[in-house]
Amino acid sequence: MFSLVTNEVKSAKRWFIGEPLPTDKLEGQLLPKRLALPIFASDPLSSVAYAPQELLMILLIGGLAFLSFAPWVAAAVVILLVVVVASYRQLVKAYPSGGGDYEVAHKNLGEKAGLVVASALLVDYVLTVAVSVASGVDNIISALPFLNDYRVEIAVFFVIVLAAVNLRGVAESSKAFAIPTYLFVGSVALMIITGLVQAILGHAPVAESADYGVKAESLGQAAVILLLLRAFSSGCSALTGVEAISNGVPAFRTPKVKNAQRTLVLMGSIAIMLFAGLVTLALIARVHYAEDACHLIGFENCEGQPQRSLIAQIASAVFGNNSVLFYVIQAATAAVLLLAANTAFNGFPLLGSVLAKDSYAPKSLLTRGDRLVFSNGVLILGLFATLIIVVYQASLTHLIQLYIIGVFVSFTLGQTGMVKHWWGLLKGGCSNRGAVWRGLVINAFGALLTAVVLIVVTITKFTHGAWLVFAIMPVLYVLMLGVNRYYRDVNKEIEVDATTTFGADGDHAIVLVGRMQKPVLKALDYAIAAQHDSIEAVHLSIDDESTNALEKAWAEMNIQVPLKIIVSPYRDVAEPLCQYIAKRRTIHGSEVVTVYTPIYIVGHWWETLLHNHKARRIRKRLMLVHGVTIALVPWLLDSSEVIYGRRSRPLPGAERRGEPVRPVARTPRQERRHAKSHQQ
Amino acid sequence: MFSLVTNEVKSAKRWFIGEPLPTDKLEGQLLPKRLALPIFASDPLSSVAYAPQELLMILLIGGLAFLSFAPWVAAAVVILLVVVVASYRQLVKAYPSGGGDYEVAHKNLGEKAGLVVASALLVDYVLTVAVSVASGVDNIISALPFLNDYRVEIAVFFVIVLAAVNLRGVAESSKAFAIPTYLFVGSVALMIITGLVQAILGHAPVAESADYGVKAESLGQAAVILLLLRAFSSGCSALTGVEAISNGVPAFRTPKVKNAQRTLVLMGSIAIMLFAGLVTLALIARVHYAEDACHLIGFENCEGQPQRSLIAQIASAVFGNNSVLFYVIQAATAAVLLLAANTAFNGFPLLGSVLAKDSYAPKSLLTRGDRLVFSNGVLILGLFATLIIVVYQASLTHLIQLYIIGVFVSFTLGQTGMVKHWWGLLKGGCSNRGAVWRGLVINAFGALLTAVVLIVVTITKFTHGAWLVFAIMPVLYVLMLGVNRYYRDVNKEIEVDATTTFGADGDHAIVLVGRMQKPVLKALDYAIAAQHDSIEAVHLSIDDESTNALEKAWAEMNIQVPLKIIVSPYRDVAEPLCQYIAKRRTIHGSEVVTVYTPIYIVGHWWETLLHNHKARRIRKRLMLVHGVTIALVPWLLDSSEVIYGRRSRPLPGAERRGEPVRPVARTPRQERRHAKSHQQ
Repeated sequence: MFSLVTNEVKSAKRWFIGEPLPTDKLEGQLLPKRLALPIFASDPLSSVAYAPQELLMILLIGGLAFLSFAPWVAAAVVILLVVVVASYRQLVKAYPSGGGDYEVAHKNLGEKAGLVVASALLVDYVLTVAVSVASGVDNIISALPFLNDYRVEIAVFFVIVLAAVNLRGVAESSKAFAIPTYLFVGSVALMIITGLVQAILGHAPVAESADYGVKAESLGQAAVILLLLRAFSSGCSALTGVEAISNGVPAFRTPKVKNAQRTLVLMGSIAIMLFAGLVTLALIARVHYAEDACHLIGFENCEGQPQRSLIAQIASAVFGNNSVLFYVIQAATAAVLLLAANTAFNGFPLLGSVLAKDSYAPKSLLTRGDRLVFSNGVLILGLFATLIIVVYQASLTHLIQLYIIGVFVSFTLGQTGMVKHWWGLLKGGCSNRGAVWRGLVINAFGALLTAVVLIVVTITKFTHGAWLVFAIMPVLYVLMLGVNRYYRDVNKEIEVDATTTFGADGDHAIVLVGRMQKPVLKALDYAIAAQHDSIEAVHLSIDDESTNALEKAWAEMNIQVPLKIIVSPYRDVAEPLCQYIAKRRTIHGSEVVTVYTPIYIVGHWWETLLHNHKARRIRKRLMLVHGVTIALVPWLLDSSEVIYGRRSRPLPGAERRGEPVRPVARTPRQERRHAKSHQQ
Repeated sequence: MFSLVTNEVKSAKRWFIGEPLPTDKLEGQLLPKRLALPIFASDPLSSVAYAPQELLMILLIGGLAFLSFAPWVAAAVVILLVVVVASYRQLVKAYPSGGGDYEVAHKNLGEKAGLVVASALLVDYVLTVAVSVASGVDNIISALPFLNDYRVEIAVFFVIVLAAVNLRGVAESSKAFAIPTYLFVGSVALMIITGLVQAILGHAPVAESADYGVKAESLGQAAVILLLLRAFSSGCSALTGVEAISNGVPAFRTPKVKNAQRTLVLMGSIAIMLFAGLVTLALIARVHYAEDACHLIGFENCEGQPQRSLIAQIASAVFGNNSVLFYVIQAATAAVLLLAANTAFNGFPLLGSVLAKDSYAPKSLLTRGDRLVFSNGVLILGLFATLIIVVYQASLTHLIQLYIIGVFVSFTLGQTGMVKHWWGLLKGGCSNRGAVWRGLVINAFGALLTAVVLIVVTITKFTHGAWLVFAIMPVLYVLMLGVNRYYRDVNKEIEVDATTTFGADGDHAIVLVGRMQKPVLKALDYAIAAQHDSIEAVHLSIDDESTNALEKAWAEMNIQVPLKIIVSPYRDVAEPLCQYIAKRRTIHGSEVVTVYTPIYIVGHWWETLLHNHKARRIRKRLMLVHGVTIALVPWLLDSSEVIYGRRSRPLPGAERRGEPVRPVARTPRQERRHAKSHQQ
């Protein structure tokens, strides 16, 4: 076992660190813009798949005449989008560390504002999954109407698939993730151009719902304004996800800020074109989409049959129903929406790690590469998204009501924080006052506008379901604050002070011996090598038979360490041992007793159910005894070789943090050899 | 910190072991017969609450005329009960260790028979909960009919309550547990006597269903026989739980076997009297209970209204409907049935520990006093019982179909094992051949009879739902066998052999230092006290700022141990450390490196989410490095004082194993003081 040659140690070392990857190579692992765009933009771009539909739908509540307001409402949304993109260009420049709105609000407006943003974002991640999946399923059903009866089931199925994929681990930067976004942008752009050309050539596309009338509510003047504001609110869902890039700056290649800004502008331009194009085309083709299908006059079987999504109706009108391109549009739309849902699974751990850094979330979220932590995050996110999908029966229209509150809370506080940031720079007397003033003006305008929108959104949506968001946010807020206060108290407790002194004296080793087995011999060997002042082996006798067998084996193997037998009358091993050590302490004073126990390293999760349990219990109790330290002597069971293959799987959110996945260039056979060479 | 006086150590010691309890005092903690009877008999006695009803119900499928078979079928059940009780008297004598049928089958018929019994018993524990709760709810609804709409909900509620009670921990030996059983036996006996006296005096009780006709199926001769056998099978549910005492012998006071036998006979006699009495009274009062309420001619609103249970109908006929005694009977019946369900929560861990001893279940089930292990068992049992209650809509009639298969598998194999046991004694040439012969004859008869009943039960119930039991038992069987084979393989792997030698040489200590905090200083103190050949403090530098702060503090505190800074380019702390240690090994050969890390001891489960995570990850990785042993230096946070109050809660099944609950005579204030005195 000690024929260890340098060679083997070297390969063991390589195994530990993977193939060496110098720091300057890290750059090559970061995202090029052509991948950064689809990764960060699938969320904001996909929202144009539902925003125009929801905007027009709300207007139609007032009747067909209200569609004449549509261009103005859409223009307002576009202006807002421009302002928000401009605002985030400033934010990215000022805070390139990836904290986004949370960091900006926290640093400039204080802890409370930061936590409000954080809780808004957490709620929004859940809703991003729910809304995107619901909309994706809606578009699938628009192409395959017979699936309508299974709407909720399909939505839940997709959430489970997304959670499973992220539990398993998949690199978001793989090219497969880029295809749907480009396909969506390309095919929808093609559709818009084709449709506009058709209209110019005089045979404009006609939607299947063009001839339906609408049962309109008769509205007073106040109600008209409210309806317009509601339509605007729903249209604003096109803005969701714009902030994603501000969280992902570390993932960009240098010059990071420039690249992030360019991607942001590119994404904003595409979103505006798609949004404007779809609204225009929907008005040209006279798509009539009602909140309740039965409000459409002329729509047969409104109870049983779903309305097709706005995109589906346009695609059908432009390319012909059931044409190949119609299915391409629907497939690309569904895919990009599911991709957008996937981004939430990546953004959630990213935000978690930022919160953990500031002690508002468990520190474990900061630990890199811990699959368990991320698994829990993925499960929680998936669970809540499923819950909300089931409760709202995967109804996009209902889910949208909850959605954009969080986004605009985060927008408003983020921009306000930026205003304070620039103001501070101005007061501090910075060099490039021109740029700072420009930033200040842009962000001030952004803050004002998003604050107004937030108020509008709150007023128009509160009674339509958004109250739920306002109920959950404080809970998250209090939880995060509680975690922070807990960490603060503990830090105070363990702070080094002048009064606490340490001065352990004396050194005794106890090797716990159950049965005569190799792991025990290894522990004994280690204890002897550590040359403690005194050493003894301790066996807790529960039945005479096995104790006698041990004593016999001990004598036969001629082990020089004395074997102390402690009889345990209650078959409990922890307490008599604690007593024994406590008693030693009355004689030997403040000595340190090192208790050696073997610990089994296993390969499969279920093996942990079958091992180490008793030892863990003993350790847990021993830790309450004065002056005890516990030495774990690992024993690698054969099955532990399975562990080695695992580490290369990417973690959700890793790429957004700018953390490349380190390649593991090892074959299973190599792994096995290394595993075996590790024993002792 | 080292002003520890002997006094404090003494009280600390007392804290660890609770008030001293000498072994000879243990006897006083065991169960007196007046408590043993209700604890072990609630399950078998409660089954008379449903067995007569199910027996008569099956007969009524053939029409009212078939009720004339009832006395004969009931007599067959009584005979079987006598034989089974007599058989178990022998089993208790031969195997007083508490292993019951499983132990007998395993020892005499081999592993496979033992595992069949074990899987049958595991299934039956789940069904005991489901059937008893369903029957209990049935009796509650008989008294309070307006609850009928919530049958499943109430049943699930009771399962949750039972699980919660057992998760929380409650001493089964408390007198509160004895009351329902005695109340049930007393009140039902009173009812039977009253009813019989009324009948003798000429005004026999008349059940509310006495005048209902029954839609009878016309049956051929074979069908008649099958129906009679089915009625017998259902009546045999009166035998469930008889075996409980054979698992609980260790809990009896000495003379254990005699006391257990007497309790067994007493229980059997009571069960026979109640069973025979209820059947007789039901026939006298002409209770007509149909499988489907709508088969009763004259029963109005058969869809919406439930039939009242047989016991309720008799009680109502004897004592008058809605009389106080009627409610007493119903309350006592419901209570004893819920108590019977509770016994499954106690029997389950007991069987688990026996299986663990033989390596067929995780060894952790053998660890005494581990709440976590028992909690998992309680949760699993509760979950499956809930599942089966929901699937079968808490219908007693359907659940009974699954029930007694397991019981009779266990009876048959247990008795067969006993036959082999006696036969072995005879062949071995024992002294008291008379007693052995008697045992042999009794158990052979028992085995034969229960085998016949098992065949009857299987034939009559298989298509009525019992196939499920036959599907699940093999799964459990394979699982248990797999666990056993796994343990066997691991034992072989870690067996001491001649080729493996140990010979670690050299002794180096590394103290992991994150921030300068008290737990780190304690770890450092312990490492110094252990006088390793060489010692160093290692800090893994993730950002320069905190590293500089640490170096400054290190210098300020004038710590003589050298502080080694390892820069971690990837912010990952485990890998650079592993590299560092592996590199040392290339220079220093087979030395043992002891890595000291502080570990936080906390009081609340949620605190574990907030602590030790990073350290645990580092440890996990370090354990894969050659020659590393990990020294845990515990740091008790203030909150850890909460731990001390916990240990006195009784565990499910503890009393059946004859394990008394050790009293903890400590006030919260004392606990706090002790907790504080434990630091360092």
